[in-house]
Amino acid sequence: MPDTYAVIFSSRRTALDDGYDDTAELMVELAQQQPGFQGVESTRGPEGLGITVSYWDSLEAIQAWKRQIDHRAAQRRGRLDWYSEYHLRVCKLEYERHYVRESEETGA
Amino acid sequence: MPDTYAVIFSSRRTALDDGYDDTAELMVELAQQQPGFQGVESTRGPEGLGITVSYWDSLEAIQAWKRQIDHRAAQRRGRLDWYSEYHLRVCKLEYERHYVRESEETGA
Repeated sequence: MPDTYAVIFSSRRTALDDGYDDTAELMVELAQQQPGFQGVESTRGPEGLGITVSYWDSLEAIQAWKRQIDHRAAQRRGRLDWYSEYHLRVCKLEYERHYVRESEETGA
Repeated sequence: MPDTYAVIFSSRRTALDDGYDDTAELMVELAQQQPGFQGVESTRGPEGLGITVSYWDSLEAIQAWKRQIDHRAAQRRGRLDWYSEYHLRVCKLEYERHYVRESEETGA
């Protein structure tokens, strides 16, 4: 099985919204076009903590996305305007389990 | 630096709440008492996707928590009642970055 690497990005936002949602949406679209992109899950709760996890084929693919020009501009805006704090962790998948309720699998 | 392993648990809930919040809270308290526990971040957005990431010293610590008796009961309830779907991924931390806004670091 090929390798998978996860980028866990947890963040707290400032009060400044200016362009945040549009940029976040655009970054997902652009990430999906990057070589080695596998998928992304993202959520933010009412208390303000956001967690986005993206999955990649390799550390090189993650580095290439980090350097992508529009993503670099977004990172800069993130530090200047949008995030009061974030934690980014890159890790290598060891194993995984997936559960889907039977009634939803069958559509019953 | 000692190793860190992350457990990324992403889930979608059923409509059944019966005891969910209390159990989720209790599981965090119990996990904090487990050997090798480092920390946890958890959030669920208005569209229903929840992501919880817990951090551990070793794969053995993760396995021990998986087998903890109250946690096993909660896992069973999770599959029976609370989750329509979940994905659990265990991975090993490669590197991390942390950003905190200066104005918040200094309290200014």
